[in-house]
Amino acid sequence: MQTIITAVGPDNRGLADPIIHYVTGHGANISEIQMYDHDEESLFAMLCRVDLPAAEYAALQQAMFEIGRQKGLSIRVWSPDERGARPRLAICCTHRTETPLALLRAIRDGQIRAEAAVMIGNRPSCRALAEQFDVAWRMVGNDEGIPDEELLTAVCDEQQVDYIVLARYMRVLPPATCWKFAGGRIINLHHGLLPSFPGIRPYHDAHANRMLTFGATCHFIVPELDAGNQIINQSTFTVPPGMKLDDIIRLGQEDNEPRCLVEGVRRVVAREVQLHFHRVVARR
Amino acid sequence: MQTIITAVGPDNRGLADPIIHYVTGHGANISEIQMYDHDEESLFAMLCRVDLPAAEYAALQQAMFEIGRQKGLSIRVWSPDERGARPRLAICCTHRTETPLALLRAIRDGQIRAEAAVMIGNRPSCRALAEQFDVAWRMVGNDEGIPDEELLTAVCDEQQVDYIVLARYMRVLPPATCWKFAGGRIINLHHGLLPSFPGIRPYHDAHANRMLTFGATCHFIVPELDAGNQIINQSTFTVPPGMKLDDIIRLGQEDNEPRCLVEGVRRVVAREVQLHFHRVVARR
Amino acid sequence: MQTIITAVGPDNRGLADPIIHYVTGHGANISEIQMYDHDEESLFAMLCRVDLPAAEYAALQQAMFEIGRQKGLSIRVWSPDERGARPRLAICCTHRTETPLALLRAIRDGQIRAEAAVMIGNRPSCRALAEQFDVAWRMVGNDEGIPDEELLTAVCDEQQVDYIVLARYMRVLPPATCWKFAGGRIINLHHGLLPSFPGIRPYHDAHANRMLTFGATCHFIVPELDAGNQIINQSTFTVPPGMKLDDIIRLGQEDNEPRCLVEGVRRVVAREVQLHFHRVVARR
Amino acid sequence: MQTIITAVGPDNRGLADPIIHYVTGHGANISEIQMYDHDEESLFAMLCRVDLPAAEYAALQQAMFEIGRQKGLSIRVWSPDERGARPRLAICCTHRTETPLALLRAIRDGQIRAEAAVMIGNRPSCRALAEQFDVAWRMVGNDEGIPDEELLTAVCDEQQVDYIVLARYMRVLPPATCWKFAGGRIINLHHGLLPSFPGIRPYHDAHANRMLTFGATCHFIVPELDAGNQIINQSTFTVPPGMKLDDIIRLGQEDNEPRCLVEGVRRVVAREVQLHFHRVVARR
Repeated sequence: MQTIITAVGPDNRGLADPIIHYVTGHGANISEIQMYDHDEESLFAMLCRVDLPAAEYAALQQAMFEIGRQKGLSIRVWSPDERGARPRLAICCTHRTETPLALLRAIRDGQIRAEAAVMIGNRPSCRALAEQFDVAWRMVGNDEGIPDEELLTAVCDEQQVDYIVLARYMRVLPPATCWKFAGGRIINLHHGLLPSFPGIRPYHDAHANRMLTFGATCHFIVPELDAGNQIINQSTFTVPPGMKLDDIIRLGQEDNEPRCLVEGVRRVVAREVQLHFHRVVARR
Repeated sequence: MQTIITAVGPDNRGLADPIIHYVTGHGANISEIQMYDHDEESLFAMLCRVDLPAAEYAALQQAMFEIGRQKGLSIRVWSPDERGARPRLAICCTHRTETPLALLRAIRDGQIRAEAAVMIGNRPSCRALAEQFDVAWRMVGNDEGIPDEELLTAVCDEQQVDYIVLARYMRVLPPATCWKFAGGRIINLHHGLLPSFPGIRPYHDAHANRMLTFGATCHFIVPELDAGNQIINQSTFTVPPGMKLDDIIRLGQEDNEPRCLVEGVRRVVAREVQLHFHRVVARR
Repeated sequence: MQTIITAVGPDNRGLADPIIHYVTGHGANISEIQMYDHDEESLFAMLCRVDLPAAEYAALQQAMFEIGRQKGLSIRVWSPDERGARPRLAICCTHRTETPLALLRAIRDGQIRAEAAVMIGNRPSCRALAEQFDVAWRMVGNDEGIPDEELLTAVCDEQQVDYIVLARYMRVLPPATCWKFAGGRIINLHHGLLPSFPGIRPYHDAHANRMLTFGATCHFIVPELDAGNQIINQSTFTVPPGMKLDDIIRLGQEDNEPRCLVEGVRRVVAREVQLHFHRVVARR
Repeated sequence: MQTIITAVGPDNRGLADPIIHYVTGHGANISEIQMYDHDEESLFAMLCRVDLPAAEYAALQQAMFEIGRQKGLSIRVWSPDERGARPRLAICCTHRTETPLALLRAIRDGQIRAEAAVMIGNRPSCRALAEQFDVAWRMVGNDEGIPDEELLTAVCDEQQVDYIVLARYMRVLPPATCWKFAGGRIINLHHGLLPSFPGIRPYHDAHANRMLTFGATCHFIVPELDAGNQIINQSTFTVPPGMKLDDIIRLGQEDNEPRCLVEGVRRVVAREVQLHFHRVVARR
């Protein structure tokens, strides 16, 4: 049973040892270990992917919970197999409703076989959408839209979220949050083609380059590595010379972005793709 | 009558004056003048776009011919109106046959309202194609495929070519040739998305960036300026994660590139777009 | 006598003709003509560089003034020879005082043989500096620091400014202003290495790339063309691994930027370099 | 005692477990683990950095040697402390002699406190240099200069090399070789500023961008990650407008590149910097 353990703490003293000691001591095969040390933020993180007899899973969770409690670490155990038939999604959004709406419809229509566990906003704009589809709504932003990262994490934990989908959620997740849900659990939609147009105004940038092609990119978020390398899906559209930027943006937001994100989330939920050593690979 | 005069010579001493003097002296309105001095190559070039009473056109041609002869300059006079109903194309190619074949078919089927005046190769690979479509074939390359630029220019002149189409012609036109046919008469197909992937192996570059989007760009060639700014048409295709590069390249070469070039040439020939101060603009 | 004529108007109808007609009709040799049509802003601009008998200069100025008045165009005639021995500078600044201070000292000490004709600010921060060096001070910004472009242009005209130096002036000059003083009269300091770090936070960008080299670039401003191509001077400094960004920025602002700008302005004022067809060339 | 274990094998089945099992079972503290799976090349690699009682070091080496033998893995154990006072260098070169010469002189003069254990060439050009400084010379290239990677690795092993210095060695080390000596043991000189000019002709690229600044970069080689992030030292020089490219290249090769590499190697050998989770950090 493929299992992913993530651990986040203030430094690497004694963080890795007890976890690795336990898994190697309980017949787990180590498939992948990644460690990161964000010196600037004195944040230490580890991802450990193991193969485990299913019977050991519950015990592992309990043991990791214990280690976390004793060592003051934030440890999570997750397996894509646990709710594989119908994974639970947290849909994070800000102002724009097109992409969350497309996700909710695709879930309703069975195109995406998942549960919309919760919608999380740093702005109230999408609340009505959550109510319309009868999905729990949690507001995590203050008056300036600055999100409470602790709360966002807590909501995902309490809702037993498998995948966090950033549907034009216009805030950057801090490294700590990225690491807590590392291993291919955070899916982002970028409204431009990566890696060419990574900025916050990709339509404007491509237009300023006189391009006639515009696109969107759905990718896993992997802290510290070029996001362009974790692309799950891209979709594009081309326009004739002379089309106004406003019209281009409208085409992108209303048609191309939703299409791009829905197909990307579908691929992950259907487990057609997975993150394998920082790379998106098609499952054999 | 919109008329474009191009002049190329070894330096700018006395090049501009007689030409400008003539046009301003014969009731032409100057719409655009661009001059370039390629210091490294001691090449001086001028583009002069004027509006002219149609009756003056023949006299202008004669006068420019005279100036060129006297001053030892390479001067050309051209108007998109001259053969506007059915412009003459030179199709330049090297090894790959997909894009020239697509052009010849589109011309045959009336999708592109133009005359395939001549096919020019720096390699013999496309000769059979020219014969199949009964188009004059001219070989300009030596055994290493190095083209004789004088010959290429002479062929375009003698064939009264309106537009030169580089259909996967894998040689760079020297600035002198570009200037002789400046003003939106040279159309290139680049087998990648510009400006992101300008290199000679754009499929490999995009793939190395783990992109799932691949594209082609049809653009006017404008010496000394970023080719990304003269885009006539772009077309793209996206692939699922894990597709092999060879399969991607095949899709691009056999389907996407021909489609991109045919539509680009159609837009120019149909005069839906034109080059206006280094920019591609849609004609009102 | 090398003379530069610039003309700016709302469109190209009849702008070029009278000017070119006059100069070709009065024994001027045309060295360079560039025209631009900023479709988005319905702004048309022309640069015309001619060689003229010195005796014709005053008459040309008068004639161009007349044409401008009649046609409602903004026309300027300027020659680097006019005040070649001691050109007049407008020093534009915003908040930072290091680079304007360095310029004023270099002028006082004779390192830069020029006249500090006026200091122009969109913020009041550098006013004391102007008073200290007894240089006329003109405030062109409103409470938000938004400059009155008409006023800025008027000040440069009335002060008979030869060169406009942007000494960490943190506003972008609009194309119209750039064209009014085209031909190598606007000198900018960018606080990063061009073309690699063109953004507004080049120190942060280079640092984020883990670079140990930081630099500044002094360049002519040429609208619509890659500023990286008009570099007059660059200077750099390198730091050991681990140096804090704040310390790096301090080194750059207090030492490297002033050095870079002073040497760049010196080269222009001493006419060691000139702008020649959009390129900076060393004068023979 | 800081100790680095690297293991390279055909896949990840059972590679990590025995190594990690041993180190966790013998009182080693795990400081860092990185794993990579080069799917394209079916190459699996692991880096494990541990803190170890010095007394355990020999036993660890023996145990890892055993595991390697049994599992058919290529395993190495290395500690910067082992020969910390006077580490042994392999200097790899191709044609250019400036940078290897500068290294040999700096070692002879005590500026770099290290042993020139061996010089390795894929071309014979630097052989005389090795003889002049009485350093062992090993030729690893065939007639086309293609290196025998097995031989290169074997030479570094038999010579007990601590650091491999690529002194204008114009071949790319394959991932397997990089991983065998991972953890900050491979130092490269790139003859351009990274990350801006990563290509094989960085002088030409910077010159084509009309830059007046040229530089060199000394960096650790870390497979799969942007080399720009592992910069040990950069040095630059600026030139006046108009300097010929050949003169610029000469300045770079004869003066700037040697200076850059010597200081970079000095920093590593003196342990002023170290590689810490893919980043170069200054040691406290």
